[in-house]
Amino acid sequence: MPERLAYVNGWVGPESQASISIYDRGFLSGYGVFERTRTLHGELFRLDEHLARLYRSLRVTRLEAPMSRAELRAVTIDLVAQNRKLLGPDDDYSVGHYVTRGLEGSGRPTVVVFCQPIPFKTFARQYIDGAHVVTPSTRQMDTQMVDPKLKTTSRIHQLLAEQEAKLVDPQAYALVLDLAGNVCEAFPGHNFWIVDGGTLVSPKNQTILRGITRDVLVEVAQKVGAPVKEADIQLYDVINAQEAFLSGTSRCIVPVTRVNGIPLGDGTPGPMVKQLTKAWVECFGLDFVQQALSHLQEDARHT
Amino acid sequence: MPERLAYVNGWVGPESQASISIYDRGFLSGYGVFERTRTLHGELFRLDEHLARLYRSLRVTRLEAPMSRAELRAVTIDLVAQNRKLLGPDDDYSVGHYVTRGLEGSGRPTVVVFCQPIPFKTFARQYIDGAHVVTPSTRQMDTQMVDPKLKTTSRIHQLLAEQEAKLVDPQAYALVLDLAGNVCEAFPGHNFWIVDGGTLVSPKNQTILRGITRDVLVEVAQKVGAPVKEADIQLYDVINAQEAFLSGTSRCIVPVTRVNGIPLGDGTPGPMVKQLTKAWVECFGLDFVQQALSHLQEDARHT
Amino acid sequence: MPERLAYVNGWVGPESQASISIYDRGFLSGYGVFERTRTLHGELFRLDEHLARLYRSLRVTRLEAPMSRAELRAVTIDLVAQNRKLLGPDDDYSVGHYVTRGLEGSGRPTVVVFCQPIPFKTFARQYIDGAHVVTPSTRQMDTQMVDPKLKTTSRIHQLLAEQEAKLVDPQAYALVLDLAGNVCEAFPGHNFWIVDGGTLVSPKNQTILRGITRDVLVEVAQKVGAPVKEADIQLYDVINAQEAFLSGTSRCIVPVTRVNGIPLGDGTPGPMVKQLTKAWVECFGLDFVQQALSHLQEDARHT
Amino acid sequence: MPERLAYVNGWVGPESQASISIYDRGFLSGYGVFERTRTLHGELFRLDEHLARLYRSLRVTRLEAPMSRAELRAVTIDLVAQNRKLLGPDDDYSVGHYVTRGLEGSGRPTVVVFCQPIPFKTFARQYIDGAHVVTPSTRQMDTQMVDPKLKTTSRIHQLLAEQEAKLVDPQAYALVLDLAGNVCEAFPGHNFWIVDGGTLVSPKNQTILRGITRDVLVEVAQKVGAPVKEADIQLYDVINAQEAFLSGTSRCIVPVTRVNGIPLGDGTPGPMVKQLTKAWVECFGLDFVQQALSHLQEDARHT
Amino acid sequence: MPERLAYVNGWVGPESQASISIYDRGFLSGYGVFERTRTLHGELFRLDEHLARLYRSLRVTRLEAPMSRAELRAVTIDLVAQNRKLLGPDDDYSVGHYVTRGLEGSGRPTVVVFCQPIPFKTFARQYIDGAHVVTPSTRQMDTQMVDPKLKTTSRIHQLLAEQEAKLVDPQAYALVLDLAGNVCEAFPGHNFWIVDGGTLVSPKNQTILRGITRDVLVEVAQKVGAPVKEADIQLYDVINAQEAFLSGTSRCIVPVTRVNGIPLGDGTPGPMVKQLTKAWVECFGLDFVQQALSHLQEDARHT
Amino acid sequence: MPERLAYVNGWVGPESQASISIYDRGFLSGYGVFERTRTLHGELFRLDEHLARLYRSLRVTRLEAPMSRAELRAVTIDLVAQNRKLLGPDDDYSVGHYVTRGLEGSGRPTVVVFCQPIPFKTFARQYIDGAHVVTPSTRQMDTQMVDPKLKTTSRIHQLLAEQEAKLVDPQAYALVLDLAGNVCEAFPGHNFWIVDGGTLVSPKNQTILRGITRDVLVEVAQKVGAPVKEADIQLYDVINAQEAFLSGTSRCIVPVTRVNGIPLGDGTPGPMVKQLTKAWVECFGLDFVQQALSHLQEDARHT
Repeated sequence: MPERLAYVNGWVGPESQASISIYDRGFLSGYGVFERTRTLHGELFRLDEHLARLYRSLRVTRLEAPMSRAELRAVTIDLVAQNRKLLGPDDDYSVGHYVTRGLEGSGRPTVVVFCQPIPFKTFARQYIDGAHVVTPSTRQMDTQMVDPKLKTTSRIHQLLAEQEAKLVDPQAYALVLDLAGNVCEAFPGHNFWIVDGGTLVSPKNQTILRGITRDVLVEVAQKVGAPVKEADIQLYDVINAQEAFLSGTSRCIVPVTRVNGIPLGDGTPGPMVKQLTKAWVECFGLDFVQQALSHLQEDARHT
Repeated sequence: MPERLAYVNGWVGPESQASISIYDRGFLSGYGVFERTRTLHGELFRLDEHLARLYRSLRVTRLEAPMSRAELRAVTIDLVAQNRKLLGPDDDYSVGHYVTRGLEGSGRPTVVVFCQPIPFKTFARQYIDGAHVVTPSTRQMDTQMVDPKLKTTSRIHQLLAEQEAKLVDPQAYALVLDLAGNVCEAFPGHNFWIVDGGTLVSPKNQTILRGITRDVLVEVAQKVGAPVKEADIQLYDVINAQEAFLSGTSRCIVPVTRVNGIPLGDGTPGPMVKQLTKAWVECFGLDFVQQALSHLQEDARHT
Repeated sequence: MPERLAYVNGWVGPESQASISIYDRGFLSGYGVFERTRTLHGELFRLDEHLARLYRSLRVTRLEAPMSRAELRAVTIDLVAQNRKLLGPDDDYSVGHYVTRGLEGSGRPTVVVFCQPIPFKTFARQYIDGAHVVTPSTRQMDTQMVDPKLKTTSRIHQLLAEQEAKLVDPQAYALVLDLAGNVCEAFPGHNFWIVDGGTLVSPKNQTILRGITRDVLVEVAQKVGAPVKEADIQLYDVINAQEAFLSGTSRCIVPVTRVNGIPLGDGTPGPMVKQLTKAWVECFGLDFVQQALSHLQEDARHT
Repeated sequence: MPERLAYVNGWVGPESQASISIYDRGFLSGYGVFERTRTLHGELFRLDEHLARLYRSLRVTRLEAPMSRAELRAVTIDLVAQNRKLLGPDDDYSVGHYVTRGLEGSGRPTVVVFCQPIPFKTFARQYIDGAHVVTPSTRQMDTQMVDPKLKTTSRIHQLLAEQEAKLVDPQAYALVLDLAGNVCEAFPGHNFWIVDGGTLVSPKNQTILRGITRDVLVEVAQKVGAPVKEADIQLYDVINAQEAFLSGTSRCIVPVTRVNGIPLGDGTPGPMVKQLTKAWVECFGLDFVQQALSHLQEDARHT
Repeated sequence: MPERLAYVNGWVGPESQASISIYDRGFLSGYGVFERTRTLHGELFRLDEHLARLYRSLRVTRLEAPMSRAELRAVTIDLVAQNRKLLGPDDDYSVGHYVTRGLEGSGRPTVVVFCQPIPFKTFARQYIDGAHVVTPSTRQMDTQMVDPKLKTTSRIHQLLAEQEAKLVDPQAYALVLDLAGNVCEAFPGHNFWIVDGGTLVSPKNQTILRGITRDVLVEVAQKVGAPVKEADIQLYDVINAQEAFLSGTSRCIVPVTRVNGIPLGDGTPGPMVKQLTKAWVECFGLDFVQQALSHLQEDARHT
Repeated sequence: MPERLAYVNGWVGPESQASISIYDRGFLSGYGVFERTRTLHGELFRLDEHLARLYRSLRVTRLEAPMSRAELRAVTIDLVAQNRKLLGPDDDYSVGHYVTRGLEGSGRPTVVVFCQPIPFKTFARQYIDGAHVVTPSTRQMDTQMVDPKLKTTSRIHQLLAEQEAKLVDPQAYALVLDLAGNVCEAFPGHNFWIVDGGTLVSPKNQTILRGITRDVLVEVAQKVGAPVKEADIQLYDVINAQEAFLSGTSRCIVPVTRVNGIPLGDGTPGPMVKQLTKAWVECFGLDFVQQALSHLQEDARHT
């Protein structure tokens, strides 16, 4: 059975053999940065924006860029092309770029690129039922230690926050607050939005990862004529919002229907999130909801 | 030429072949914890204390322990025994234990054990000249995100702090402050101490890694009759201290002679740090200063 | 059927008729302070300490004392005496003192005293199974707004914290953290303790209600020879503690066996908490555990 | 002499007999939320907005709504109608809605509605002389404990802040700062505004009660063509503002003429506050200043 | 050789004799406020704005104004006129206004006005090479102690911050962060700007001195059609900005080309700063860059 | 009439002529440090401790020491000797040492020494009536900007705090809180103490000036057998303390009898402060209370 290929420092081979040294500082110390880009119908979506953000992360962490952005782009496109044939009809890839400090003292960074099928089955039902967000006692990473705008591989704060949220609901996202009590992001990996009087409101972009899908949402919102603004929001605002939703690379738009166990509105996905989803699908030509749900059906067929 | 062996999930082999999958969550997300234990004359020093702390880190991060503490102890002792013959006469090992979440979805943690010769040459001169500590603008990790008592592999905050300190002096340690401005630790990897009127003062153990060598220092201080206390200290106290020093697993005790470019006392290692060093050597039978300096001489011989 | 009596501003009558005006500032604005004292075999326990704390709360809030402490003491003793005959064989009272600002503009405070049977059934199983403490995202009240040492009737922060903890476990206590991430109290109404190397450690008394039962515990600890200290502790310390327990007026000593779902030690009440419980019982002549458990048995008999 | 009626859980009767049990959790613990709506010429003003906010408070505190919003609306309108005949010619009502958790364990909330004549005499002179605002050392309630957007009956922080301000001036309002030093609200119960270069500036709506009269002011400002914005403001801005004023349900618009003893501008109410007052009166058909002043004159007549 | 004149409390005389009592509270305690206004071709630039800010500082610190603003204006214009003849062809004055509390108990403030030639030589090269900004561990003054909008003579925090930055580079400016980690000002004495996608972004005006040259920049930006906004920015934004620059009274506009040793963009002054400089020169008729550089050439001629 | 002499950079002359340049950085920017030492019966008290602290301040601010500590000591003793004859029978001097950065660019610090009669009349009544301390909204200086342990001449935060306190009572001291709400110092210039169950408690020495008289108090407390400890204390503790008092160089020990208008204990100086005063007098041979009161009597005689 053919296997997906991965790229590791110039080597391209079966992903089961793709490995890095135990002495890699990415492994030992989390000295690395990364990106995740998804494909739509097998085509890389917003690759340039992701690579631009990767190089911004490299700049701030002073990790050396392993190659030029153009070269990394070429490597990526090539790898996706080679793996495309292994993609199922309703599948797409989450393409990972990881750059670490490499072997201590080597002065040579490690660069890894790989393609993983998006695990649609694990989140498909959230498009129908909506997601549950739970505020853990763990707070968002702070710019005074590691700016949350940096997409580094030192992410254990995310794990700690998620573990707390999952005590309430194993499917919950962790809606982390910053040190001042403002709502930030939904771990793992999603920007958070509320709908307030028809306006899309997202937390200020100082204490969050500046999502590329979040930027896509701004475009989509313009399509549907919904005003967008950034503001400090607190749990009070979330609980009293008309709607809420998440945006992220793989899942695109996920409605939120519960906050700390409290139903949002009538507890079902609202009209704005439906409208945005529809507009997204029209803009980019992929019905990501149907794509995800097809995996449930497949599952159902097998049982 | 024979090569050191490393342990990876039951496999034992040459360290140049020791690797982990690119899909290991330790590599991808810094979801791991670790310890570093040194040898004295080739014998593991305070291994049990290090393993106990490793298991405390596992407990808080809810990472599964890959095996019992006794089993990991046996694996370690065995590995060190196998590698001992490769140790030079003035050398010792820094033995690393790394436990990560392993492959996503596998439910099986990754465990890595290895032996690296301590790079004495890189820090030997600090025993004579003293070290320089510099306070970066980056702050210490906070218990509200990731408790600094956790020894995780998500350490990029440490890299960011060190990079700032090295702008002042490429040999400097980063003396990080917490969010309230208290002195915490000296990155990479050292606890910090000042001598105030004959008393050894160390920052409170809430915002620092609770160093095992720090505990050793408490024992040694008792030997020489020096009182020890924990207190919140600020830069003012450091600059006006009679002496200051670092404690860490590999380097044991390192005198500090400069703070942000200001000489401490007369700018040379003081009597207390010398007395503690002497007592340490007597207690544990290894003159770590001579050991380190021998590497400089060796270097000198070769040039 | 005879009814318990309550005291309201000089009036003594059946508690079902005991009421206050809707215009009382205690009702409208939470402008009040209170105490809860329990009886042991029907006798008031540490009443003087409770009244002293009540008058400290009055002093800081500038609420007028409705009468002298001696007078309030007399009123209380009298009321308990009158209600004693209604106490079942295994029952005891939680005696409430509430002093509010009274009717706006009246200049006359409201004082209420009442006796409520301790609801043993609701918590008896915790003596056997141990309690579960969960850290909510809501933080402890801060001295910059309302000092947590003040026992005021403005307690909605407590409700908000408890509601979050109960999402994880309906029986859980909310272990609130202060704004710096230190562990404070277990809502509702308990001081928190860990056992660290045989020492009883309790959070510093600046950010907690200074429990009278907490003081009793210090006495009891002396009896059993256990050292006691106050320290800033964090979740890391709790999760890695040998044991933990709660102290409070009605429940006396409650073992804690789980923290955010993680079992403490082996997940059962530990030897220290048993020893302290035993010593408490010997000191004060009431086996509060048996007292509570008898209510479960009674329950069992009826089913 | 006829007495005003009040509503308590379905009962309607003379307010002197309106009472709640001493065991009500609103009384015991401040577990309640409330609103105050005023009448204009005896007609309820912005009742729907007040009820909407009441239900937002209920949602966040998870207190059960005692009845639907429409039902509570009907009860209120009915009660005001019944009490209207007792209203003097220059009087108006402050109508209170209070919902608490009710008797512990009952699962039934308490709901109270009442009508109190606005005490015009106590504040009438402020329309002429302007009010004095004083910054106490006590800080505004924080979203990490209890969101200041919640209108709960746990308000003792307000009392503590007011008591400090009244040490400077018995008529002063307490202009509380948040934990970062930003100006928030003027206790008791007013939003705060400054005029900066012709623009009305109000603190950001994250750390304040979102006043319904504040929203009214925005409407009125549009009428007079004054731009409105929200911004973080500090004491520096207040002291150097051209004008400042308060907005609140009963008092509508109150000019501020002193800050911590420093006169604002020339120390008299400025042109913008006069213009806004005039516009308010025109919009809503009640000269609230004359209404208040008439009570002083009446007083004068009697002496 | 003729000497510049200075003004001290009504006395006008040679600056070498201009002195204040050792008992002046400005000297003893930093109880003073000040302004620095520059001349352009010997003419005072934006004097009224500087004096207005001086009087705002006086108001907040409750220091008495020594005379009316109009009188101080006249004194200043007169002094500059008298000193003008001593100004070299490529020179201009930095005119200082200092008002202190005067002699303790005297109730009479001290007022000092003087003219100092701008030391162009010390910073001229920065127009060509760009400036280096370094973030010290010392934080910006906070509004809870002394509002950074106040221009007081208590400035030792600035010295401490600068000393740290100069450890990295003796020519560096200290780019201070506030207590939340936001970028504030560049000490000594400059507002900070980044260019982000063609927009000029400056830190919010709450935690910075509200620079008069910063206001000038807003005017100049309008001229060149560059949008301007205020936002909380962090080091991440600075490092990834297209350009950055400083604005200040004497130096007008200084390009920033390095941040903590990291080159900004390509490490040379960018097109926007050049365009703004050009526009500034056109607006105000002085080529401040040539003026500064002429001093280097003069220097070169002499060597 | 003979005049007191002062020392300015080597010059010694009549204090009315003692002055510094308007260009001194101490005057312009508060770049200076200082000490105040008092005389007892004309003899300098604890001069060495004061000079040691002065040199600690110099070290942290990197201001150059103008001369050796021994030289400055000699200058001081000499100056006091020369001024002694001008001291009245019940008088003593407050001797000031001020060291600033001097003229910009000169590289030569300014040093000033002077003798001022202690203004006993202004505070004598506080020994009988006790002092009033008031908590302002302004917070204590923080170590992240300027360590409060540094005795610099940049003190305007002190002025701002005092001005607020004096709004409540023109004789009040400003009892400043730190950013976490802990009690720090009483401005101007006093350490703060409470008596709690017979123990003297003083705020932790991290956020306060480490008073030399505070150290003297520790000695005196040992004499009277009163235990001393440092702890974080809040307003709650102060209001409920048995006694409170201030310690400072000139006033030695001042009883505190009111806190924010609330009487402490019975509102009169308590037994502990009397005992400490008595012991102080016995230890150091000067009845500072009588000395101060004699100035009131003198005043009375003249009227």
